[in-house]
Amino acid sequence: MPQCDVILHAAFVVTQDEDRRVMENASLAVADGLVAAVGPRGEVAPRWRAAQEIDLGNALIFPGLVNAHTHSAMTFLRGLADDMPLMEWLNTRIFPVERQLTPEIVRLGSLMGHAEMLRTGVTACVDMYIFEDAVFEAARMAGLRCLGGEAVFAFPTAACAGPEAALESTRALAEKYRDNGRLAVAVNPHSVYTTTPEILKSCRDLALEYNLPLHIHLSESRDETEVCLKNHGKRPVVLCRDLGLLDVPCTLAHVVDVTPEDMDILADHGVVVAHNPSSNMKLASGVAPAADMLERGMRVALGTDGPASNNRLNLFTEMGRAALMHKLAGRNPALLPADSVLDMATRGGAWAMHNPKLGSLAPGQAADCAALDLSAPNLQPMYNAVSHMVYAATGMETRLVMVDGEIVYRDGRYSRFDYEALCCEMLDIRRFALRAAGIS
Amino acid sequence: MPQCDVILHAAFVVTQDEDRRVMENASLAVADGLVAAVGPRGEVAPRWRAAQEIDLGNALIFPGLVNAHTHSAMTFLRGLADDMPLMEWLNTRIFPVERQLTPEIVRLGSLMGHAEMLRTGVTACVDMYIFEDAVFEAARMAGLRCLGGEAVFAFPTAACAGPEAALESTRALAEKYRDNGRLAVAVNPHSVYTTTPEILKSCRDLALEYNLPLHIHLSESRDETEVCLKNHGKRPVVLCRDLGLLDVPCTLAHVVDVTPEDMDILADHGVVVAHNPSSNMKLASGVAPAADMLERGMRVALGTDGPASNNRLNLFTEMGRAALMHKLAGRNPALLPADSVLDMATRGGAWAMHNPKLGSLAPGQAADCAALDLSAPNLQPMYNAVSHMVYAATGMETRLVMVDGEIVYRDGRYSRFDYEALCCEMLDIRRFALRAAGIS
Repeated sequence: MPQCDVILHAAFVVTQDEDRRVMENASLAVADGLVAAVGPRGEVAPRWRAAQEIDLGNALIFPGLVNAHTHSAMTFLRGLADDMPLMEWLNTRIFPVERQLTPEIVRLGSLMGHAEMLRTGVTACVDMYIFEDAVFEAARMAGLRCLGGEAVFAFPTAACAGPEAALESTRALAEKYRDNGRLAVAVNPHSVYTTTPEILKSCRDLALEYNLPLHIHLSESRDETEVCLKNHGKRPVVLCRDLGLLDVPCTLAHVVDVTPEDMDILADHGVVVAHNPSSNMKLASGVAPAADMLERGMRVALGTDGPASNNRLNLFTEMGRAALMHKLAGRNPALLPADSVLDMATRGGAWAMHNPKLGSLAPGQAADCAALDLSAPNLQPMYNAVSHMVYAATGMETRLVMVDGEIVYRDGRYSRFDYEALCCEMLDIRRFALRAAGIS
Repeated sequence: MPQCDVILHAAFVVTQDEDRRVMENASLAVADGLVAAVGPRGEVAPRWRAAQEIDLGNALIFPGLVNAHTHSAMTFLRGLADDMPLMEWLNTRIFPVERQLTPEIVRLGSLMGHAEMLRTGVTACVDMYIFEDAVFEAARMAGLRCLGGEAVFAFPTAACAGPEAALESTRALAEKYRDNGRLAVAVNPHSVYTTTPEILKSCRDLALEYNLPLHIHLSESRDETEVCLKNHGKRPVVLCRDLGLLDVPCTLAHVVDVTPEDMDILADHGVVVAHNPSSNMKLASGVAPAADMLERGMRVALGTDGPASNNRLNLFTEMGRAALMHKLAGRNPALLPADSVLDMATRGGAWAMHNPKLGSLAPGQAADCAALDLSAPNLQPMYNAVSHMVYAATGMETRLVMVDGEIVYRDGRYSRFDYEALCCEMLDIRRFALRAAGIS
């Protein structure tokens, strides 16, 4: 009888496999960080000898959700300021604090962000920030998967004296995390409006040299388009296409203000779009044509953006809001049904991570999964597991989270770090942010 | 030294009093179901001798939220069908089940709905359904406040042979719950399109006779307006005004498809609007002009609508979605700031209940409150309690809920009923609904 490390039993397993099978009274066998088997309990359980057996009872196991675009460190700014015009918010509340950042603040802010993601069933994220190695350090402490990279700007940041230094930092990260199991590196030009065509070309070259994907904010708002037209005589998507950026595997965040021609270009290049419903609503950026993109066969994932503009890192929140905002915007209650939305948060997320081992539970896939407690009153009764994930669950029903076959969260406890100590450290972070923002 | 029944201590108390004071390291003294005192711990604690003292530590006490429009029984249909055009959904999934309802199913469905509301910090709801006395029975079992009434239709329901029977049932409820502490009765004509002007007039007369408020779905969609114009030559608001309905204290649900002239009429009559962001998005009904209404000084509350079109009964979900949908719709990130949204869910809710003792924590107000655990990772760090309530909390951080000075929920346990037994009964309800919908 084959041996596995752990076997999980639950009332339901939502596999998100090719056939989107939802199994009732099912088991998931895990060996060497991979799914060894998934199927009806009566078939799987007798065939595997497990070192550890966990019966989750009335629970729903699902592939770990992927946060396809975030700045997880920004928890230290969560709720410091809201409901403000974008430029005033950035100039008076965000930038003054970010200019005084240190790697330690980024590490602690990120660890709290990763704690929130694990707490709500997210097992991987695509991250962009400054001092990104501190974000990786937090991900390592939390046990989360992370595709990250140093944000590249045309101007100096607290972390880098200029774009060359940021590219050099990305190169160092690429060397450091080559062949790392959970941590992977992307080239992260911040956006077309905070860089130059020369910087973007250097980013593309670095991505090609190290075979890295590229992650950039693109076409987030009408303002961005107007600035780009004024400065470069082209729309952002066309500019990126012409610079060869889209020839590299890309995760493009936002993609709100796009024309059908822009979408044709993006579809032709097989990019992955990270759609951020909450952030686009909170900042009044507009409605990304995600339903249209899916209809074109484009690959769309879901992200939270940073916690300063959300203010959560909760993919259940994003799933619900995605399903609802597109129904409203398209005036059609059948638009973006629950299964399409769950696909975005799982299989779409695997694309955004450029890692096909993620996003579904099938033999050979990464053993990244989580389990919801179905006895929560908002999940009673149960007719449709996918509907409950998208429309009814808050994410806080998560009882267990596994990454790479390792249980990293279970029933209020994180296995790799001391959460209470982190909460104490956040008090210092809070004092720093208030002082840096000139509030106290 | 004065005596009180219980004193709660917490890191923060969001009072929602006239001055919207947020108190740090504060205490709430409760006597005879009312707030006896609220203030800094150092001032309140030494002045009151408490029969019970509860230190909630790093928690945030807030006035119990009010769900201003719901059909709480409909948990038995949660997730049975989604993502469908409205009429197909109603005709193939909702109505066939509702035709076979019994008081027992309504009672159990409501109790699960009330369990979800308490679990997420809601202490009162405005409810409309059939077999409404079974809803009241559930509210009594849960300990929740409820303003309810039998839904009045022009046609027969499982509960009533016609509108006369529904009015008779409302009259009986009004007699039964006269002077009941937590349960109160409203006259509930379902809508203008499911009744007639004669029925609406009878509803108004009954409301005047018993001094009851009136609760109706109004101007929910463009379709409703068109049908009303065709049948009555008037828009729904004008029809209700002309029939004298708006002369009674009113809670009007939805109010999506309204003109500036409609809003003038509603403002002149001092009605309360129950805004339902999730339901309006999920059913693609449109955006109720809630920000405009608030600017006109109108009284706006927040509701979930029924769990079949949401699929939650979670006011935290509604607060977040309200804040975000109006920013997007108005293309202005400063629209509907967090404090306006919290006002809708608390003080606005008191108006919707037509009970001024609710919605704020101040001496003499009802001791209806709840407490959020601020150590949840999504609530770290803490800069602004109101921002956290609207943008960061999921509602599942609720640790304690008090209604009328009685603790009805604490740390996973309901004080008045057996939640595990209810979950078992939901299995029968589920089988009934599947059979009634013709699915199995």
